[in-house]
Amino acid sequence: MTDLQDISQFRFWSNDTVRFADIDRYGHVNNVAFAVYAETGRVEFAEVIAPGSADGRGVGWVIARLNINYRNQAHYPGLIRIGTAVEKIGRSSVVLKQGLFCNDVFCADTESVIVWIDVEAGLALPLPEAVRDALKPYMLKSSLGA
Amino acid sequence: MTDLQDISQFRFWSNDTVRFADIDRYGHVNNVAFAVYAETGRVEFAEVIAPGSADGRGVGWVIARLNINYRNQAHYPGLIRIGTAVEKIGRSSVVLKQGLFCNDVFCADTESVIVWIDVEAGLALPLPEAVRDALKPYMLKSSLGA
Amino acid sequence: MTDLQDISQFRFWSNDTVRFADIDRYGHVNNVAFAVYAETGRVEFAEVIAPGSADGRGVGWVIARLNINYRNQAHYPGLIRIGTAVEKIGRSSVVLKQGLFCNDVFCADTESVIVWIDVEAGLALPLPEAVRDALKPYMLKSSLGA
Amino acid sequence: MTDLQDISQFRFWSNDTVRFADIDRYGHVNNVAFAVYAETGRVEFAEVIAPGSADGRGVGWVIARLNINYRNQAHYPGLIRIGTAVEKIGRSSVVLKQGLFCNDVFCADTESVIVWIDVEAGLALPLPEAVRDALKPYMLKSSLGA
Repeated sequence: MTDLQDISQFRFWSNDTVRFADIDRYGHVNNVAFAVYAETGRVEFAEVIAPGSADGRGVGWVIARLNINYRNQAHYPGLIRIGTAVEKIGRSSVVLKQGLFCNDVFCADTESVIVWIDVEAGLALPLPEAVRDALKPYMLKSSLGA
Repeated sequence: MTDLQDISQFRFWSNDTVRFADIDRYGHVNNVAFAVYAETGRVEFAEVIAPGSADGRGVGWVIARLNINYRNQAHYPGLIRIGTAVEKIGRSSVVLKQGLFCNDVFCADTESVIVWIDVEAGLALPLPEAVRDALKPYMLKSSLGA
Repeated sequence: MTDLQDISQFRFWSNDTVRFADIDRYGHVNNVAFAVYAETGRVEFAEVIAPGSADGRGVGWVIARLNINYRNQAHYPGLIRIGTAVEKIGRSSVVLKQGLFCNDVFCADTESVIVWIDVEAGLALPLPEAVRDALKPYMLKSSLGA
Repeated sequence: MTDLQDISQFRFWSNDTVRFADIDRYGHVNNVAFAVYAETGRVEFAEVIAPGSADGRGVGWVIARLNINYRNQAHYPGLIRIGTAVEKIGRSSVVLKQGLFCNDVFCADTESVIVWIDVEAGLALPLPEAVRDALKPYMLKSSLGA
């Protein structure tokens, strides 16, 4: 099983900062904010893999599934570091894994499925060869097989 | 497998409304807003099961896992109906399933795991008998066995 | 001076609900959420005055100024009622006033300036006659003169 | 009149980043996100002036008024720089001015009034002498008199 608190799994890193408004009445970062941090990393990654793909026009990505495992509380103020890696490349979809760290403490991991679509038609398209090639350097070490 | 677009699965319903700020540059409800709608249903449910448990003080719930399957786009303006049911009652945790409907169209389902804790200590506690009893009427039909 | 806690000032009303995620570590509704409630009322009003004007395409409104006076704290759970009225109709802009009530308690008032623009060009346009006419029934009583 | 696009007005600077979820269907940063960026700067400033004052317990600040003037659109991706300065120190309240810059373009300015209160009682208290002294180095140049 993949250890997503092992930072060496990730070659792609994004930053976000805990906003005061991310805190809820428990005094910690609300669970919803983790979905935002996951998006920060995912969209930055998607833009590197296929520039312009998060424009909301033409072809691009849509999210089909998001799973968040909450591991540790996060607090304000905090710097969030998000590692993003590819677990699996399908015909028109990609499975991503992320490790989220708040002030260097592992606080959550995510699994998400993104699908390459025609945005206006809402239809899945096969991943272009250039996109497949761009994804490969970011495979999880543990997905590279032995 | 449970059909979460079957509204008869759910005895507990909550409402939310799509806010203009929930829309992103795709012109549809952003994926993060679904995590908010899931929370709307989950906290209302938790407050019915154990009043005061979402106060952020004493004993109460913390979320350990949230999975969202995105099924259909949602748009502004929209009324969100959230059905919440119990799939499994553990020693200190509960598995919830939700069906989310936007203007009566099935748009997402969720699975979440919530844990009964001592909020200050951050430690899991066994579910009180009163809480277990309060949960039972909300079991998914498909979890009720044959 | 206009008394914005006088509900008879407003002929246009919108609803929002306090979300759990709107609460901050003070245990009350965060100041930012009031900007969201104001938007809920403003966009609903704008859509009634000029249907399609909040589409983000063609001609429509942009906000130039938002002022919020915080009068009373709001809490979860809560129903927000937002009254919206027109204070002044300019050449290409409109001054709106709002009263915000949480569970029927006056909690904030706002003043906002919205401008009629060509969205792509980002240029102010004169208010169409049909829009001016649609605005008139919603003037603040105190703006109607003596 | 104070020129808030003059960065030399501000001795206190904070950073935020435009999140994908901050964008609305106009394809630009939603007006509500500016209230968030203003809060980012305000709370960081408040914590420097009176450490612990944004804890939501004991004594601390509450916001009484927020005015935002929208000057230019902001887009994703973007770095937000927030300059915060003191315009006026009252008996129990402080008037702040802010300049907001997105990728170095002036995009908004704000005026806010914060009040020093007993958080539990909700009552305004006179500003402690140490707080007054801590505020003074951050006066707007144009408030320093001739």
